[in-house]
Amino acid sequence: MARINEDYRKLRAGYLFPEIGRRVRAFEAAHPQARVIRLGIGDVTLPLAPALVAAMRAAVDEMGTATGFRGYGPEQGYEFLLDAIREHDFAARGVELERDEIFVSDGSKCDTGNIQEIFGAGCTIAVTDPVYPVYVDTSVMAGRTGEAGTDGRFAGIRYLVADEANGFVPDPPCEPADVAFLCTPNNPTGAVATREQLARWVAWARANDSVILFDAAYEAYIQDPALPHSIYEIEGAKECAIEFRSFSKRAGFTGVRCAYTVVPKQLLGTTANGERVPVNALWLRRQTTKFNGVSYPVQRAAAAVYSPEGMKQTAEQIAYYMANAALLRDQLGAAGFTLFGGVHAPYIWMRTPRAMGSWEFFDRLLAQACVVGTPGAGFGPAGEGYLRLSAFNSHENVTAATRRIREVFRS
Amino acid sequence: MARINEDYRKLRAGYLFPEIGRRVRAFEAAHPQARVIRLGIGDVTLPLAPALVAAMRAAVDEMGTATGFRGYGPEQGYEFLLDAIREHDFAARGVELERDEIFVSDGSKCDTGNIQEIFGAGCTIAVTDPVYPVYVDTSVMAGRTGEAGTDGRFAGIRYLVADEANGFVPDPPCEPADVAFLCTPNNPTGAVATREQLARWVAWARANDSVILFDAAYEAYIQDPALPHSIYEIEGAKECAIEFRSFSKRAGFTGVRCAYTVVPKQLLGTTANGERVPVNALWLRRQTTKFNGVSYPVQRAAAAVYSPEGMKQTAEQIAYYMANAALLRDQLGAAGFTLFGGVHAPYIWMRTPRAMGSWEFFDRLLAQACVVGTPGAGFGPAGEGYLRLSAFNSHENVTAATRRIREVFRS
Repeated sequence: MARINEDYRKLRAGYLFPEIGRRVRAFEAAHPQARVIRLGIGDVTLPLAPALVAAMRAAVDEMGTATGFRGYGPEQGYEFLLDAIREHDFAARGVELERDEIFVSDGSKCDTGNIQEIFGAGCTIAVTDPVYPVYVDTSVMAGRTGEAGTDGRFAGIRYLVADEANGFVPDPPCEPADVAFLCTPNNPTGAVATREQLARWVAWARANDSVILFDAAYEAYIQDPALPHSIYEIEGAKECAIEFRSFSKRAGFTGVRCAYTVVPKQLLGTTANGERVPVNALWLRRQTTKFNGVSYPVQRAAAAVYSPEGMKQTAEQIAYYMANAALLRDQLGAAGFTLFGGVHAPYIWMRTPRAMGSWEFFDRLLAQACVVGTPGAGFGPAGEGYLRLSAFNSHENVTAATRRIREVFRS
Repeated sequence: MARINEDYRKLRAGYLFPEIGRRVRAFEAAHPQARVIRLGIGDVTLPLAPALVAAMRAAVDEMGTATGFRGYGPEQGYEFLLDAIREHDFAARGVELERDEIFVSDGSKCDTGNIQEIFGAGCTIAVTDPVYPVYVDTSVMAGRTGEAGTDGRFAGIRYLVADEANGFVPDPPCEPADVAFLCTPNNPTGAVATREQLARWVAWARANDSVILFDAAYEAYIQDPALPHSIYEIEGAKECAIEFRSFSKRAGFTGVRCAYTVVPKQLLGTTANGERVPVNALWLRRQTTKFNGVSYPVQRAAAAVYSPEGMKQTAEQIAYYMANAALLRDQLGAAGFTLFGGVHAPYIWMRTPRAMGSWEFFDRLLAQACVVGTPGAGFGPAGEGYLRLSAFNSHENVTAATRRIREVFRS
């Protein structure tokens, strides 16, 4: 008899973003004339940069020729992409990586979920609250938790509250945790960890022999050159951290699909009998067995991100979105809203007016301003009373959205 | 302390194909003049068909425009692709599927490994022997087995021998198993199940409330229209089977990456308290949480497979490879080798001469004929004494390979 994975039954009914999608579709069906502006899901809106399109098109053409065709590529990614990553994302910031420490994939969502497979079932997971739901949901699906409490928190997960008091960057937990997810610049709060804060995390992980799963999907949005882009800029991090990077927000790849994960060879895990083994070899085994590499034209497009034109064009796109973030901060701030983030990240974390609940604010924003945000409570109980606004849209739509929000919520 | 997943330690040192790659690279390094012909790994060699290149290029261009750009797509695939699949792969053979029974992915290797996540940890797995190593290795990695015995078989897995006596299509096991992998046309033996054989499997699965994981990655190579391409051509299969399809061998997509998995809504799993729940909803939850959809240009290329030009061009490619299979069968058969498969599949399953071991034959073939096959023993103990030859190469190379093999192994 085929028994199901019972752990799935612990999950809430729907993943956050499909639930938002359902509510928006219902509203649009009921109000076909409404022009809804989406600042909810963090999806890019600008077209793929010309240098990337040209590289991808050339690779597609290659695939149509006898000499240029490529079948199965290396599961870990082509060297042309690995080398571009090493040079521009790491060596340029003083971090040396070897090729086989980088694993190219089709998305960080997959990687942050799948990485758990290489750790023991008994490992304790720590996450921040609020948090990107994938870390928690995949931990639940993997059987690492008990049931959810009435507050939505799962037994067995260590939640570290990210709030106004700590500037939304919690310190490492006092109790040990085996594996800790850390996302900076943060989704959803837009907060970014300083060098000193990351150094405390690295010291904690090394002291406790813990592994930090460092999600740097938004590093390209950091404006202050003194802030770390990679956790490996912190001494000793290679011994305790896995880093996730994505081209989704860096280069508008949400529909193109490319990301990568760094697993340094110095990072060791422990077996039941106390033996120390390299985690890199486990991830290599996982990927060669359960993954077949990223589409060749997609890898060519990703490599073109690092060409001079690609760097310039994608930097302009990021500047465009960050101008939206500034606009949201300025306009809504001037209207009296309390806002966080949006300086080194494309997300604004907005306190709901009059202590309204997150979903109530979401529904009112949709119904009265035709603007879609993401309810903070969807990211965890500590997100209650907040709403995430994304800077991914056109200047025109962001301007219109701020005007509508101000009109509806004028006090 | 971050403990590793100990189940990985049960695996053999390397996945089969990387091990072959290592031996071939070592040989080539030692013999730089040798012109090695690869009939080992099942990787296509013909360039991507023109209709597919055109569609993918057009989609890349779209991504570079404000109106044509697409960010996150539906995790389950775009409707244009789902509808083409429903019409051409299923309705054309009398099988009606709904859109949300089809899940587009980046590869069947991923899907056949990941699908296990939605079944309980205690489920018994059945596989054929020989078998595509991914089914076994991913079962081991998921903790569903004990240690490997001296024969390489893992405790806790039911192995069903596929041999000359049963024409390499074993009947379902007498003992119940909860989940059974079945690949037809078969990798590695090239055998194909008849309608009657599949009907026995479906009857068995329904009687035991088991789930058949049906891998039909090679269905496009079936030559006899009476043979089933989909398990859903068998009455009742929607209640007991998940089907995996891939564009890799169907349309030369090994480097482009697209596949899909069918999970019918009638298929139910059982909870600990005996409740019956749809497996489709579990897989939807898994995919929306841990996957972000397939690259838009890739999905456009996949949809172009079903255009009149795409159908014609990819059929010509399959005919080209099948002419290679016929050539291997004819030439090596005339030389006295005992061969199986290669009629409805791109693989020839060759008995080693003089009862030689699989790896010994592999090494001699490489050293003396400069031809790469895949040792049958790499697919399981019942593959010992066989070698898999793939039809994926040029006519010229296949002709040269058969000539070399005949010369070296002339009796």
